[in-house]
Amino acid sequence: MPEEFNVTPYEVEGKVNYERLTEQFGINPITEDMEKRIARLAGEPHYLIRRKIYFAQRELNWLLDEYEKGNKFYVYTGIAPSGSMTVAHLLPFVMAQWLQEKFGADVYIQIPDEEKFLNKKDPKLTLDYTNGLAHQDALDIVALGFKPKKTKIYIDTENAGVLYKQAVRVAKRVTFSMIKDAFGFSNETNIGAIFYTSTQAVGTFIKSVEEGRKVPCLIPLGVDQDVHFRIARDVVEKMGYYKPAIIHSKFMPGLKGEPKMSSSDPNGAIYLSDPPETVERKVNKAITGQQSTAELQKKYGGDPEKCSVCQYYKYLFEPDDKKLKKILDAERDGTMLAGEHKAALAERINEFLEKHRKEKERLKGKMEEFMLG
Amino acid sequence: MPEEFNVTPYEVEGKVNYERLTEQFGINPITEDMEKRIARLAGEPHYLIRRKIYFAQRELNWLLDEYEKGNKFYVYTGIAPSGSMTVAHLLPFVMAQWLQEKFGADVYIQIPDEEKFLNKKDPKLTLDYTNGLAHQDALDIVALGFKPKKTKIYIDTENAGVLYKQAVRVAKRVTFSMIKDAFGFSNETNIGAIFYTSTQAVGTFIKSVEEGRKVPCLIPLGVDQDVHFRIARDVVEKMGYYKPAIIHSKFMPGLKGEPKMSSSDPNGAIYLSDPPETVERKVNKAITGQQSTAELQKKYGGDPEKCSVCQYYKYLFEPDDKKLKKILDAERDGTMLAGEHKAALAERINEFLEKHRKEKERLKGKMEEFMLG
Repeated sequence: MPEEFNVTPYEVEGKVNYERLTEQFGINPITEDMEKRIARLAGEPHYLIRRKIYFAQRELNWLLDEYEKGNKFYVYTGIAPSGSMTVAHLLPFVMAQWLQEKFGADVYIQIPDEEKFLNKKDPKLTLDYTNGLAHQDALDIVALGFKPKKTKIYIDTENAGVLYKQAVRVAKRVTFSMIKDAFGFSNETNIGAIFYTSTQAVGTFIKSVEEGRKVPCLIPLGVDQDVHFRIARDVVEKMGYYKPAIIHSKFMPGLKGEPKMSSSDPNGAIYLSDPPETVERKVNKAITGQQSTAELQKKYGGDPEKCSVCQYYKYLFEPDDKKLKKILDAERDGTMLAGEHKAALAERINEFLEKHRKEKERLKGKMEEFMLG
Repeated sequence: MPEEFNVTPYEVEGKVNYERLTEQFGINPITEDMEKRIARLAGEPHYLIRRKIYFAQRELNWLLDEYEKGNKFYVYTGIAPSGSMTVAHLLPFVMAQWLQEKFGADVYIQIPDEEKFLNKKDPKLTLDYTNGLAHQDALDIVALGFKPKKTKIYIDTENAGVLYKQAVRVAKRVTFSMIKDAFGFSNETNIGAIFYTSTQAVGTFIKSVEEGRKVPCLIPLGVDQDVHFRIARDVVEKMGYYKPAIIHSKFMPGLKGEPKMSSSDPNGAIYLSDPPETVERKVNKAITGQQSTAELQKKYGGDPEKCSVCQYYKYLFEPDDKKLKKILDAERDGTMLAGEHKAALAERINEFLEKHRKEKERLKGKMEEFMLG
C-alpha cells in the first residue's frame, strides 16, 4: 500500500499520519506512564508532552532509570541555519531549556552551518551566509533562557577542530548503502551531504569524549530528524557509548494549513525577526477551522484541529491547559469569530517576540560564554 | 584490451607501463624543453627530473610562465601516515624542499591522519595511532631541510578548524558518481572515505584563501595520487582559483623487485626508523639484476633495470649522474659483484639515515614553528 505521506530530513510531503510513522520508523509512543514519570521527576508536567506534541520516543524509560540511579543525562539538539528562525524551530529548544532547568541537564547545541549549504541548491546559501545565520540562531536560542554554564553551542565550520575527528570515527562505520535510501540520496548526491550525518552524530557522544566516561544523552527533535540517529545509535554503541535516548515532536503546522511550517514559505511561517505589523498581517491571513460566514460559524461552530490559530496556541502560545481549552471550545462552539481569534493570537505572539528581542539585546556581547570555543 | 596493471590511490597492481598510464590519466610527459627551463630558472637541474623519475606533468609550462612574470607559486604535497615512513615516501618531499630552496616557494604539507584509518581495515590503525604517526612523519619531513618560515604542515584531525570549511566547499561540487569508479569505490565504501578527497583538495587553494587572491600551486606527487586532483582541478577552478600544476613521479621499486615499495612489506622497504643492521640485512636480501653465479656475472654482466640496488641509487642515493653511471656500468659489465654492490648501498643508506636521525634530534621541540597551528 503506497504511503500518502513521506518524511525525510530533507522533505516532508503529504498529511503525516503519526501513528503510521511511528511504525515506519520503529519508534514507540510516549505512554501515559512515561508522561507521569517525567512530570514526577521534573516536579511539574510539560505541556508539549501532555499534549502529545512530543509523541514518540526511543529508550526514554532507560534514560529515566539511569537518572533515578544518579546517572544524569545531558541534552543534545540543534538547528541547521537557512534563514531567520521560525517559531516552529523553537520546539526542541523550549524542551531542552526545560530539561536543563528541571533535570539539571547540560545542553549541547549543534548549529551545522554547512548542512543547508550542502543540501540546497539556493545560491544565496553560501557558507559565509549560513555562518552568519548560525550566530543569529545561537542568539535566538540562548534568549529562551539557557544557562551559560550548562550550555555549549557549537557551529560546525568553526568547531570542526573538535568535531571532525569524532565525525570521522562515526563515518568509518557508515557505508553509503546504509544511508542512501533512508536519506533519499542517489549517486548524484554530493559527497559533503553524504558525509554530513556523521557530523550530526557527534553530539550523541561528545560529552562522553570530553569526560572520558559514558554519559547518557537525550535528544529532543522533530521526528523527520530521527533517521540521522537510527543509524548513529547503532554506530555509537559499537564505539562504546550509550545509544542516545530520543523524544520526537510532531511538526508545527503552517499558518496556511501546511502540515509542516517551512522557513522557505514566508507567509506560512512566523519568523522570530518578524516585526509586529508583519505578524498581524500573517496571522490575519491564517487558515482557521471556521465556517465560511460569521452566521454559519455562530450556528455550527468550527474545527480547532483544522484551525492554524488554535494549533499555534496549542504548540507554543498557550501553555496553560485550561486557557487553551477555553480557546478551543470558543472556536468549536462558534462563540469566538475569526477576526477576534486572530487578533488575540497576533497580540500573544508579538508579546513573546518583544520579550525575546529584549532578551537578545541583553545577551549581545555575552555569547562567548555559551560557545564551545 | 585488458590492462595488465592498475593504479588507484589505494592500490598499485602489476608492472606499470608509464607511457600507457600517461594516456590513461590524461597527463603529459615532462619534455626536455621543460626540463631545461626548470634547470635554468632553478640555477641547476634536479636529478629526479633529469632521470625522468618525475616523468609527467599538468600545466607545468603555465606555472613557469607565471613564475617568470613574477607570480610565484607555492608547493603543496603530503603523506598519509600508516607506519614509519619509508625512503620511497621521501620523493615528493625531496622535490618540495628543492623547490623551496631554488624557487623560494612556500611549502604546504598535508598529513591526513584520517586517511588510512578510513581506508584500511587494520585494527591497529586507530585515529590516535595514526595521529601519533603524523607527528613522527612531520619530524621526518622537516629533517630534510625545510625552512620554518616557508613551511606549513597541517594534520587533518588537528587542523580541521581550518580545513573542514574549505573541504565542504569542494564537497558540494563533487558527486558520488564523479569519484566512484576513479577511486574504486562501491556503495559499501564508508562515507568518510567518500568525503576524504575533498579534504585532500584543500591544499590546492589554501594559500589563496589565506591571502585573499589567486596563488599558483605546484604539487609534486606519486602518480597514483593524480586522481584526487583530476577531480579537484576542475572544481577549484569553478571556485575561482587556479587549477594546480602537478609533477608526477614514478614508484620507487621495492628491494624484492616489487613495482611499488610498500610500507606494509617490511622486507621490501627501508624505513627511516631502520637501525643500521636492519638496513644491511634487508639490502643483503635485495633482488639484483645479476646472473645466478659470480662466474656467469663476470662473463655476461647484469641488468641494472632489474636490479633494485641500482634503482635505489637512481631514485635517491646517488644524485651525481657520473657516479651513478659508474655503478650501473659496473652492474652491467659484471665488474661489481652482488655482495660488494649491496654492501656499498647499505653503507650509503646508513650514512643518510644517521644524518637524518641527528637532524631530527636537533629539531625536536622546535616543530611548532613548522605547524599550521
